Amino acid sequence: MFESAELGHAIDAERYNQELPRLRRELLEAQLELVEARRFAVIIIIAGMDGAGKGDTVNVLNEWMDPRHIQTHAPGEPTETDLARPPMWRYWRALPPKGKIGIFFDAIYSEAIRDRVYDRIGNSELDQALERGNRFEKMLVDEGALVLKFWLHLSEKRQKKRFDKLEKDPATSWRVNKDDWRNHKHYGKFRQVAERALRQTSSAEAPWTIIEGYDARYRELTLGEALLQALRQRLAVETVPPQPAVTVPPLVPRIDELNVLRALDLSLDLDKKDYEEQLAQWQGKLNKLSRKKGFGELSVVAVFEGNDAAGKGGSIRRVTGALDARRYQVVQVAAPTDEEDDHPYLWRFWRHLPERGKLVIFDRSWYGRVLVERVEGFCAETDWMRAYGEINDFEEQLIRNRTLVVKFWLAIDQDEQLRRFKAREEIPFKNFKITEDDWRNREKWPLYEEAVCDMVERTSTEIAPWTLVEANSKRYARVKVLKTLVERIEQALEKD
Amino acid sequence: MFESAELGHAIDAERYNQELPRLRRELLEAQLELVEARRFAVIIIIAGMDGAGKGDTVNVLNEWMDPRHIQTHAPGEPTETDLARPPMWRYWRALPPKGKIGIFFDAIYSEAIRDRVYDRIGNSELDQALERGNRFEKMLVDEGALVLKFWLHLSEKRQKKRFDKLEKDPATSWRVNKDDWRNHKHYGKFRQVAERALRQTSSAEAPWTIIEGYDARYRELTLGEALLQALRQRLAVETVPPQPAVTVPPLVPRIDELNVLRALDLSLDLDKKDYEEQLAQWQGKLNKLSRKKGFGELSVVAVFEGNDAAGKGGSIRRVTGALDARRYQVVQVAAPTDEEDDHPYLWRFWRHLPERGKLVIFDRSWYGRVLVERVEGFCAETDWMRAYGEINDFEEQLIRNRTLVVKFWLAIDQDEQLRRFKAREEIPFKNFKITEDDWRNREKWPLYEEAVCDMVERTSTEIAPWTLVEANSKRYARVKVLKTLVERIEQALEKD
Repeated sequence: MFESAELGHAIDAERYNQELPRLRRELLEAQLELVEARRFAVIIIIAGMDGAGKGDTVNVLNEWMDPRHIQTHAPGEPTETDLARPPMWRYWRALPPKGKIGIFFDAIYSEAIRDRVYDRIGNSELDQALERGNRFEKMLVDEGALVLKFWLHLSEKRQKKRFDKLEKDPATSWRVNKDDWRNHKHYGKFRQVAERALRQTSSAEAPWTIIEGYDARYRELTLGEALLQALRQRLAVETVPPQPAVTVPPLVPRIDELNVLRALDLSLDLDKKDYEEQLAQWQGKLNKLSRKKGFGELSVVAVFEGNDAAGKGGSIRRVTGALDARRYQVVQVAAPTDEEDDHPYLWRFWRHLPERGKLVIFDRSWYGRVLVERVEGFCAETDWMRAYGEINDFEEQLIRNRTLVVKFWLAIDQDEQLRRFKAREEIPFKNFKITEDDWRNREKWPLYEEAVCDMVERTSTEIAPWTLVEANSKRYARVKVLKTLVERIEQALEKD
Repeated sequence: MFESAELGHAIDAERYNQELPRLRRELLEAQLELVEARRFAVIIIIAGMDGAGKGDTVNVLNEWMDPRHIQTHAPGEPTETDLARPPMWRYWRALPPKGKIGIFFDAIYSEAIRDRVYDRIGNSELDQALERGNRFEKMLVDEGALVLKFWLHLSEKRQKKRFDKLEKDPATSWRVNKDDWRNHKHYGKFRQVAERALRQTSSAEAPWTIIEGYDARYRELTLGEALLQALRQRLAVETVPPQPAVTVPPLVPRIDELNVLRALDLSLDLDKKDYEEQLAQWQGKLNKLSRKKGFGELSVVAVFEGNDAAGKGGSIRRVTGALDARRYQVVQVAAPTDEEDDHPYLWRFWRHLPERGKLVIFDRSWYGRVLVERVEGFCAETDWMRAYGEINDFEEQLIRNRTLVVKFWLAIDQDEQLRRFKAREEIPFKNFKITEDDWRNREKWPLYEEAVCDMVERTSTEIAPWTLVEANSKRYARVKVLKTLVERIEQALEKD
């Protein structure tokens, strides 16, 4: 795998000086086209052996192209803010929007390789980490990003030569430190683990390009040329607009009338007195829980989805009403902003993840992808089909990071919805809550019903189950929401 | 995830009898179209809870459709023949050709789930096993197969009810055994592990369909309907012929003259006396090794690739000349047969894997995909790009199964090739060895050179390295091949 990158490739100064102006001009032109077309993001991952010129390469790329459209991300050790979120959070945060280039320097894979070399993790944990990287990259590629991965390589002999040379020169001796020499001693293991990592994360869509790093001129010209070719090739491809879903097939053919929504008993109700008592009781419990010491170590994400007019807002207010305003945040999810649209689908939800001790309530959520976007044909079938897996992945990362995920579907029937729509139309101050969209969506009731059933079947998991809430009675629904939330938080606190 | 499949779906006899004739007719029609079109294979994976009717479902599918075009594969415990090969061997063997349906009953995932439930493996090993399944399925989908996965489900209560009912009836009591009751006791764990497995192996291209299995009529109609819809949808899609590769870009831009082939010293030679001595010495060693006791526990796969007229045949004969004919087999790889063409690319190599104590020599190999097929445009760029990963996966499976993989590239230069071509034309009994194809390939020398360099870079791994053989001198090449083979076998025997 490293055969070619240990041959001693080198380019003389004359050739370099002759090629460079053209390469820089063409790279700049390609970048300009990228910025103007704003059709896809470019993600460049730079990894490799110590001393192979990774840092220099990042600098050179920023020098050659317009740095205003390049975001460089050199993660280093995770900060406190990072540590409060799932490990992938800092990469999500750093994703470039369409039209920009994001350089990830020594990111994602480097840490896993180091951990394996120093036996902090075993082979199966390494494979799991690589697999996480694979899934992240697959999502990026599916979302249209151009993902380029460069491994800058040095043979053992040349690594030593490089360190010796840097050390001898007083101007550069600071660039070699104890860690470098320590890593050099483990060169063989590094090479072996890196090979495994590269082998397992080289896909057809995002293969690794291995470049010998010893001679700076060879390294720069080769990487620049590879980047240029990839940019040009991708810019030349026409983007196909997503095809609207003509029919939306259910994932399991529905041959009988039974489904998880119809199995609900929507006649469940509470009288006013019971309601007020129970509401007070569960709100009190929630408040108390939120002030417990253990809560400070926990993050909570609560998702509210439901039919139009099912009473999401009212339920959310009963939850927040029990909490100190510093404890929670409500995220209203509407159509994505331009900036959000320029990022992978889940990006706009990653940005709102709570830190420890906080609760974030999503009023509508990432499930829009498999509900409204699916039914209305806002995205292609392949996009919402892959979303189930991406969402499960996303929630698993949250849970692994001790974030409790509570998901509510508020269900009403068609008659009840009609009553509420009409009432809204009649009451002037509720008028704004009902639009033509609502009436249109109502006509697609059966399609939405299928989408909800598929959603529950594909994303209700033991670690992040859906709670279906019988919401024809607002009182019943609010109490069930509060009670469920309290019980799930109690369980989570017990576990710790 | 199992919510809908625990609701108690059921269909009455009247409805069933009314629907069934239509469903059977339409399924049969779709199957006939599949057989006639012979455009893709269908792979149906049936897994699920004990007692959910997996076996019955397999029988019903065979009854409803034409069983001559269905291959059912119920692996059970691996046989001795299976155990001598990598675990996936028996699935490869059972893959249906284009136009046929292969039913895999309790295969691939069931074993991993059971092992996890009974704590024979941990979560990270489970994830590794699931990931192997994912890769296998991805390959199938990439090769154009339609992959359908059904999980037949039962709630804990209904599983007990089903077992009780079967046991009570003397005609069916034999269908419930100790293992079933033992598994029932672990129902909760089974459900949990199955959920993890389904979550991690549900992709957009091959999602799981979960069907409640208690009521046979519901189960049969739902599965039949799902199969019908999937077949129809896929049959309606036009197949796009692979686009010929106009230019074949190297994976790493070659900006200098140096590459692994040009770095070889092709002037290396042996005089006749040295050659005969060394040949005898290494052949003797090889023969001795092959009769060692440890060799019986080892399998060896030797791959010979090289430029046209580089002397592969002569080198192979020097190897086989040292071996008992029962020990080895030489596989000449030419254009695929019709049957081979109807299977995924690697299928024709899986069929020739050696059992223990045997050596199989491939005269040309699976590397044709990234050499001749790439250069001549016999397959699309995406196909040969993904082949690197598939080949690495394949060889890793061999090695994990204690199969030694030795790969030779016999390299000559253009002048030497010309000399040999001309000599072949002049000598009547060697005349058949030179064709117009050879002269045509020669014109594409630079493209082949790039393909070989990319191949070495992407598939030379520490566990399965390429040995580049300087072959301008036939004598030198033959001795290097024998010596390398002997040394690699010695290493492998030492390791055990």
